[in-house]
Amino acid sequence: MKKVFLSFFLLGLALTMQAQDISLLPPEKTGGKPFFETVNARQSERAFIKRDMPLQTLSNLLWVANGFNRSDKRTAPTGSNKQEMELYVMCDTGIYYYDAKQNVLNFIAQGDFRIALGQPHISNEAAVNIIMVADTDKASVESARISSGYISQNIYLFAASEGLGTVARGSFRAELSKAIQLKNNQTIILVQPVGYLK
Amino acid sequence: MKKVFLSFFLLGLALTMQAQDISLLPPEKTGGKPFFETVNARQSERAFIKRDMPLQTLSNLLWVANGFNRSDKRTAPTGSNKQEMELYVMCDTGIYYYDAKQNVLNFIAQGDFRIALGQPHISNEAAVNIIMVADTDKASVESARISSGYISQNIYLFAASEGLGTVARGSFRAELSKAIQLKNNQTIILVQPVGYLK
Repeated sequence: MKKVFLSFFLLGLALTMQAQDISLLPPEKTGGKPFFETVNARQSERAFIKRDMPLQTLSNLLWVANGFNRSDKRTAPTGSNKQEMELYVMCDTGIYYYDAKQNVLNFIAQGDFRIALGQPHISNEAAVNIIMVADTDKASVESARISSGYISQNIYLFAASEGLGTVARGSFRAELSKAIQLKNNQTIILVQPVGYLK
Repeated sequence: MKKVFLSFFLLGLALTMQAQDISLLPPEKTGGKPFFETVNARQSERAFIKRDMPLQTLSNLLWVANGFNRSDKRTAPTGSNKQEMELYVMCDTGIYYYDAKQNVLNFIAQGDFRIALGQPHISNEAAVNIIMVADTDKASVESARISSGYISQNIYLFAASEGLGTVARGSFRAELSKAIQLKNNQTIILVQPVGYLK
């Protein structure tokens, strides 16, 4: 599969999603708000203004959410390190799978499928929607619910540190599983839009 | 019930748990490691050296875990803000309930009940063990699992910011519910020791 290395991303221009795999930028692992201030700023936000997210911000967001911070372990723990959680990214132009090991967004489908997320006044105004999916071959749905909380809090705190908005959502339309082409062993636990504050 | 205001806590001496309610110190809401460095340092640790935790550190830990960062909302979200999660603190001398609103540890029982936590090589070496309990009158156990992940990640990131060690644990002995005097509508989801690194 082709990967895109687009130098204009490095110049800070907005991310335009492509109908092909997208190489993420190396995540920034330093900086951000002091931890206690980040926790103090954590909140749910549902009102966004439309703005594209720079690739560096998206790369940082996904790494914070569920990236590798050691060779075989992640920023969010899982019971017995089963790593049953997978992230999908949905924006106005398509759907991607986050390959955390390769730091790549794998192209899944082109088009605007955000209606499947429900609540379009939130989903359509967010820059991206993160979909948290459990691989039930690796762990039980019960474990995956706990694991999703870890990832979701990482996203909340990332948003608090960056001055972005986010809200975890547990309801979505049945067709979402089909839109992101889930297999039988995959179950969606949460969706979480991340956007720019009004 | 009497509350203890012990000035020596303010002098930074170690916390000695009392057989009565303990007023926590106002949590510090500034400082800590930069957020990205905190995330990068997040990991599970199981080897601790015995050391008492200063009351200020414990106060900060509980606030980060599930304290109020707004008048009616917390550092960890819950679906529809149901706030179904409650924290208990177990150490070598007793068990306490964290009243987040009053910023007080309510005395539950005196004595060493840590055998009920299982894995004594972890539980007994930790400075404190946090027990995450769901009130199933307020929300389903399914929701509470997700909510516990949020709280647990807060504890992980607090430990990463402070240079402490922690590990979430999903198994414990059946008698733990009795030890902390749970009612029928309460279910333990996770326990999480926090301690000083070897």
